[in-house]
Amino acid sequence: MGNAAVKQATETWVYAFGGGTADGDASMKNLLGGKGANLAEMAKLGLPVPPGFTISTAVCTAYYDTGRAWPAGLEAQVDAALSTLEASTGKGFGDPANPLLVSVRSGARASMPGMMDTVLNLGLNEAVAAGLAEKAGGRFAYDSYRRFIHMYSNVVLGLDHEEFEHILSSYKERKEFELDTELDADDWKEIIVRYKKAVEEDLGRPFPEDPREQLWGAISAVFNSWMSDRAIIYRKLNDIPESWGTAVNVQAMVFGNLGDTSATGVAFTRDPSNGQAIFYGEYLINAQGEDVVAGIRTPAPISRERAATLGSSDAPLEDSMPEVYAQLREVAAKLESHYKDMQDIEFTVEDGKLYMLQTRSGKRTAGAAVKIAVDMVREGLITEEEGLMRIDPSALDQLLHPRLLTDQEFADLNTKRRNSGQEALPVYDVIVRGLPASPGAAVGKIVFDSEEAFHLANKGEDVILVRLETSPDDIKGMHAARAILTARGGMTSHAAVVARGMGRPCVCGASGIQIDYNAGTLTVRGRTFRAGDVITLDGASGRVIAGAAEMVQPDLSGDFGELMGWADKRRKLKVRANAETPVDTRTAVEFGAEGVGLCRTEHMFFEEERIPAVRTMILSNDERGRREALAKLLPMQRSDFEEIFRILGDRPATIRLLDPPLHEFLPHTDEDIAGVAKASGLSAEELKRRANDLHESNPMLGHRGCRLGITYPEIYEMQARAIFEAAVNVARDGGVQPVPEVMIPLVATYRELEILKALVDETARKVFAEMGVTLDYMVGTMIELPRAALAAKEIALAAEFFSFGTNDLTQTTLGISRDDAGKFLTAYSDKGIYEKDPFVTLDQEGVGELVKMAAERGRAGRPGIKLGICGEHGGDPASVEFCHRVGLDYVSCSPYRVPIARLAAAQAAVRNGTK
Amino acid sequence: MGNAAVKQATETWVYAFGGGTADGDASMKNLLGGKGANLAEMAKLGLPVPPGFTISTAVCTAYYDTGRAWPAGLEAQVDAALSTLEASTGKGFGDPANPLLVSVRSGARASMPGMMDTVLNLGLNEAVAAGLAEKAGGRFAYDSYRRFIHMYSNVVLGLDHEEFEHILSSYKERKEFELDTELDADDWKEIIVRYKKAVEEDLGRPFPEDPREQLWGAISAVFNSWMSDRAIIYRKLNDIPESWGTAVNVQAMVFGNLGDTSATGVAFTRDPSNGQAIFYGEYLINAQGEDVVAGIRTPAPISRERAATLGSSDAPLEDSMPEVYAQLREVAAKLESHYKDMQDIEFTVEDGKLYMLQTRSGKRTAGAAVKIAVDMVREGLITEEEGLMRIDPSALDQLLHPRLLTDQEFADLNTKRRNSGQEALPVYDVIVRGLPASPGAAVGKIVFDSEEAFHLANKGEDVILVRLETSPDDIKGMHAARAILTARGGMTSHAAVVARGMGRPCVCGASGIQIDYNAGTLTVRGRTFRAGDVITLDGASGRVIAGAAEMVQPDLSGDFGELMGWADKRRKLKVRANAETPVDTRTAVEFGAEGVGLCRTEHMFFEEERIPAVRTMILSNDERGRREALAKLLPMQRSDFEEIFRILGDRPATIRLLDPPLHEFLPHTDEDIAGVAKASGLSAEELKRRANDLHESNPMLGHRGCRLGITYPEIYEMQARAIFEAAVNVARDGGVQPVPEVMIPLVATYRELEILKALVDETARKVFAEMGVTLDYMVGTMIELPRAALAAKEIALAAEFFSFGTNDLTQTTLGISRDDAGKFLTAYSDKGIYEKDPFVTLDQEGVGELVKMAAERGRAGRPGIKLGICGEHGGDPASVEFCHRVGLDYVSCSPYRVPIARLAAAQAAVRNGTK
Repeated sequence: MGNAAVKQATETWVYAFGGGTADGDASMKNLLGGKGANLAEMAKLGLPVPPGFTISTAVCTAYYDTGRAWPAGLEAQVDAALSTLEASTGKGFGDPANPLLVSVRSGARASMPGMMDTVLNLGLNEAVAAGLAEKAGGRFAYDSYRRFIHMYSNVVLGLDHEEFEHILSSYKERKEFELDTELDADDWKEIIVRYKKAVEEDLGRPFPEDPREQLWGAISAVFNSWMSDRAIIYRKLNDIPESWGTAVNVQAMVFGNLGDTSATGVAFTRDPSNGQAIFYGEYLINAQGEDVVAGIRTPAPISRERAATLGSSDAPLEDSMPEVYAQLREVAAKLESHYKDMQDIEFTVEDGKLYMLQTRSGKRTAGAAVKIAVDMVREGLITEEEGLMRIDPSALDQLLHPRLLTDQEFADLNTKRRNSGQEALPVYDVIVRGLPASPGAAVGKIVFDSEEAFHLANKGEDVILVRLETSPDDIKGMHAARAILTARGGMTSHAAVVARGMGRPCVCGASGIQIDYNAGTLTVRGRTFRAGDVITLDGASGRVIAGAAEMVQPDLSGDFGELMGWADKRRKLKVRANAETPVDTRTAVEFGAEGVGLCRTEHMFFEEERIPAVRTMILSNDERGRREALAKLLPMQRSDFEEIFRILGDRPATIRLLDPPLHEFLPHTDEDIAGVAKASGLSAEELKRRANDLHESNPMLGHRGCRLGITYPEIYEMQARAIFEAAVNVARDGGVQPVPEVMIPLVATYRELEILKALVDETARKVFAEMGVTLDYMVGTMIELPRAALAAKEIALAAEFFSFGTNDLTQTTLGISRDDAGKFLTAYSDKGIYEKDPFVTLDQEGVGELVKMAAERGRAGRPGIKLGICGEHGGDPASVEFCHRVGLDYVSCSPYRVPIARLAAAQAAVRNGTK
Repeated sequence: MGNAAVKQATETWVYAFGGGTADGDASMKNLLGGKGANLAEMAKLGLPVPPGFTISTAVCTAYYDTGRAWPAGLEAQVDAALSTLEASTGKGFGDPANPLLVSVRSGARASMPGMMDTVLNLGLNEAVAAGLAEKAGGRFAYDSYRRFIHMYSNVVLGLDHEEFEHILSSYKERKEFELDTELDADDWKEIIVRYKKAVEEDLGRPFPEDPREQLWGAISAVFNSWMSDRAIIYRKLNDIPESWGTAVNVQAMVFGNLGDTSATGVAFTRDPSNGQAIFYGEYLINAQGEDVVAGIRTPAPISRERAATLGSSDAPLEDSMPEVYAQLREVAAKLESHYKDMQDIEFTVEDGKLYMLQTRSGKRTAGAAVKIAVDMVREGLITEEEGLMRIDPSALDQLLHPRLLTDQEFADLNTKRRNSGQEALPVYDVIVRGLPASPGAAVGKIVFDSEEAFHLANKGEDVILVRLETSPDDIKGMHAARAILTARGGMTSHAAVVARGMGRPCVCGASGIQIDYNAGTLTVRGRTFRAGDVITLDGASGRVIAGAAEMVQPDLSGDFGELMGWADKRRKLKVRANAETPVDTRTAVEFGAEGVGLCRTEHMFFEEERIPAVRTMILSNDERGRREALAKLLPMQRSDFEEIFRILGDRPATIRLLDPPLHEFLPHTDEDIAGVAKASGLSAEELKRRANDLHESNPMLGHRGCRLGITYPEIYEMQARAIFEAAVNVARDGGVQPVPEVMIPLVATYRELEILKALVDETARKVFAEMGVTLDYMVGTMIELPRAALAAKEIALAAEFFSFGTNDLTQTTLGISRDDAGKFLTAYSDKGIYEKDPFVTLDQEGVGELVKMAAERGRAGRPGIKLGICGEHGGDPASVEFCHRVGLDYVSCSPYRVPIARLAAAQAAVRNGTK
């Protein structure tokens, strides 16, 4: 403490602002908090900021370092700042003749719920209130005083809010008052007596009369709230270090409630819902800020443009106070061009004079963000790179799918409805929250069966498929449905992965719900929904909503294309898509994919007309039988590949040979087996026996991937033949040179790849000889097992490319089945074990180390080896940045995430340099 | 080729031996092959070796390097060696007057089936045969000639063996001969005419008359057989490099079939079945080596001792040729003391004169190996360290369990039976081969149901439990059975692991068999066995044998203890056992375990009187309900631990908290659920619902291990309390200070361990405070996930010890479920992908790198951290050596493998130094 004390004695703890000058500025957020730094900046810009001072975050740190003692020098500095404030306002703190009242607000570096927010009107006591009553009227003075006692008792003294509400409402009841405005000065005086009595009874001491005691009480309360349980939890969840601390802002009060020449309001320099350059916001005449929040009176629109949008007939500020409005617009324009971003500002008009209370970057929808960024670049306000960095890549999802309204949009819509005489919409009836597995929102009727989903959709119905979990059998129903809801499964369960690939909204692992297929019911918290009931699914938040909610349709404006163009100029990573259907491949190309990074050939096996041949192949007891069945599949696979090659043109396609265990293609329940047997003419007994034979305890770690190629080489041979024949056929048509990259999955050793590469090469040689055309192609492997990462140097000797299958690599490295993780991953993130779902954002310390190691070893084994990633992480911005840093050549993701990956790759390049 | 040719011109290709001298010696095995080197060595020792020469392995290499051309200088060197041979024998190669006949034999570095073996009597043609007839009689000469044509045509010219057999048997039939001995010289001449005619018809050219052509034909045949399919496959399977090549031995013929003063035989310097120092072996008067093999005549015992053992009344060589016998014993003694190992020798007596044809270290049973090694140390022939290195640690299994007879023992037994007038036993009727999952052999009746196995065993029946696969429900039945057979599962499936732990023989993954529980039948290759049928299981080889086979009971002599004492003096690794029952713990201590390395607490949950409480706990919807059920389990777990601590005394015990997913404790089929519901009073519907809730796609990667501790901390709290209360209770009894090491399973991150270590520490603190006794204990973790290995430095900050769970680490690193691996691991080892089952022998390049990395990082995080291994690999000698090299502190394995680990650890220390 010795040294610290010495240091403290010489340190500046308090930073004043106001009167066209300030000790701090916007760059000092760490020391002054966001609010304090912006108040200082505005003061320096000469804007009309009520004067005040900021007690720095360093005080907070010192306070906790010394067991909650004030650092030396602080009190003197606060006293000095208060004197300066008195001088600049010409008022006296605690002076009944001309009282200075202040607000006390917390302000950390990052906005942080859970902390003490605000105490207004501080500095009032009996004498000061009487003095104020002389100057500004008794009703205003005692109304302000009772507000102060209520607020201070609650947030500083820790008393129950309800107690004060109760005193007030009893009084109003007895006096038969309806509204607060009916109470006069004497009524408020009576209330004040009762408030003070209650405080004294609760605390055993009277409410503080000394303004300085009130001020230090409020300052302490702000600092103490830094260590409140809620604040601690919030910091843990959001990775905010405890050492940051909070600042305290003490500012002279200005009053928007001094009569009809006073007002208070909030404004945005552009429309935060769509980014249009209109002056947006709302205000209330004769009110304090808390009245806007309380919602008792409805605020009016700030500008004529805004009023027109809402169809409002209330007078905008532009009309009611034209001079103040002109000044406010000027200030707003100055702030936006100064901060080079759309601003969210708070202001108060006291007796015709404008005061700025806060400015900060405004929250906005993704569409607004894109429009604002592009407009600002056009306006010359920011550079293209700055424009790029303004957009959260994940938010682009909102642009590509229908979505629910934001809270602000919802409020606006209801305002509009009310203004046009319609009834306001009820708030969303959220019946359960699951995992936000695939973005977008959809409305439809509940259907529990995939077959039925298909039939109803064919009749033009919008349906939502609801399943315990999905399997490959459900693909048809998932495609037909508007959205998918499952009770089980995590962010990378079958349902989630397939839904993302198809661009269908999906909510997974909604573990509160019970589904009874036989009864056709979904039950959750005592409420039962039946097949045919309409629900809304929000894949972006995981909400399941009863009934049909309002939605916003996607709108890809030209701005979006322009932004993507800037991204493409800067990124170093190429972006491919995971796609195996012509529809997906076309979507991917439209979204800017530069090739297919993962074409899962087994998806082609599940189609209705093919699965009988697949099953016959599986039921064969010998190679000859399997070859006969495979011969039937060959032309179908070939035509699949032809179509994909045609869509892709000269773009490369990484085609993964058969990966899932064979039992996935067989029916499992007795009922299904009987059905398949009947439909296909196969023996039910045989089907059952074979399904039993193939049963696996842990299919994820079973007889799959290249293990199928090793044990049944004829399968891989057929697939390789289909690929090469298709490539030659498309090349012969002219104009296009397909680039097949044949990928062997689940390799763990060099030898596996050596054996299977030889098979593929031999097949290519035969096909090219038969067809008289030779094409370039590559053979490579997925790195999706820890052993493959460890042995990457050796494996690279046989691999022309690596594609990191980070889904399976995460499963094996962490020992977590993505299908089963839902049961504990929530507890895990609650306890801070995995900060983010490792199936969504790459676990950089664990899985990432293996990726890095494999990239290095792979390059050691084969300099210049092509490296990509094709796990779900390929569309996650943080993971894309990791891929950039590790120096991969490309990322591959769901078609709908391609724009996200393109932007994230560009941001990574801007942030890290392109090396 | 240029350089090689120059080099070849100056190289020595041919090495002569005989007449008390030799160009080579025993140290030149790489160049001369095993046989050639030992022939040279014997010649140098002055032993009576028929002279000859060895064409080196370098010729084989050169032959293949140059597209099967002879290296320059070879022919001249062979000619020269042949001349020397003629000179030393006084005979001429191809000289009818005094013919030199030779044998040509292959001889690689390692004994290798699949290669050309032997051609005898080479050098005969019409003229030479006539000359030989003059000297040694017509019958001998033409019998030798026809043997030569037959053998040469078959092994050198590649003609079918059957063709010659057919000619001979037709002739004998026509002449109404029964035995070969009835044929005279003219008969053989006639046969020779027919043989030669057949050769000429098949080949289109006559049988070679020129002895030099014959010789080169035989030499080429040996070298060509190096690249035969069978040899190539054998080399792949046994990891023998192709570059080693084979040598060719050309040696002057000596004849054991020159009348009653001639003989041929084999001998061992000690008894290979039990190691006793008797002169062991057999011989035939007037015979060539091939007659012994053909089995037409029964050989007689070599010594009186051996005759007594067999109850044989045939005259031993000791009596029939006392002088030769004396000379042979002298030679044998000389060879044994020269090679310092028990020798397996071949000899021929030609007209009263002894010739040595081969010597090599003799194969022996494990019991014999131990006795011989210990005896030789006692005799001062070898050092203790040499004695230790003589024993294959894996072979010790044979000493600890009943086993089947070796081929030699089986033959001896039948000889003994015949000599005492009993009928010979039929050869084993092997009905199927599975994986040798747990060593030892057992005979018993087939039982398909665990409950029935238990009841029949209680009635004194020997039963063999036969299941598709086993689950924890089968533990009781497995314990009751003599042995376990399963259709599914690999070397580390549930059945295999549990059987090894219990010391029960087990054959797993016998994938040819079909089991019908309802019918009570086991069907394999068209044969059906029913419940009650007797079978024999050989867990050492994986054989399943119809009926009751003869067995050898284990016999741990004092020699074994002495050997183990030498091992314990030298090893650096400590050896612990995986044990959780008092029986296993006691067995482990008896086998020399220095503690328990893995006590799987869940095994205690499966016992009949406990599982209802476990199930109630699982069915509870809240923590309170779980705590109530856990309170019932606490005293049971505590008493388990008390018993184990008492048995262990001051030895440490690593106790793993609950690991398996909870659904393992619930019944699954409708039938089982109904049964459990009825027995326990729990609701069937609840049981079913909960089992469905808990269902997992990949339980191995599911909600288990520390994930249970994170989500249900009350379970781990109860277990920790049981451990500490038990430790205090045992310590209070006095004399013993238990050392609990509490192990948290399946940790992947530091944070998991941090949370659970805090829980365990807090529980310890409470228990010690309540009971007024404080004990030392440790908290540590298993490293069984790749991520844990990667994050070992950080994890070590919270871990006082690491125990490598290499079973799960292998599963996750390789992405192979041990339960499902049976379906492809065979194909994998056939194709040389994994040389050895990675669940038996640690995959050192993959899993081993992670172990090494984790050991290094763990030590970096916590210098001196205690490191052990508790996977199945802890009992595998190659893996134990790896653990020694990585510098672990201990290995832990099944109780029955403790002696193996002790010896393997000592051998590792001798081989690698103790650092």
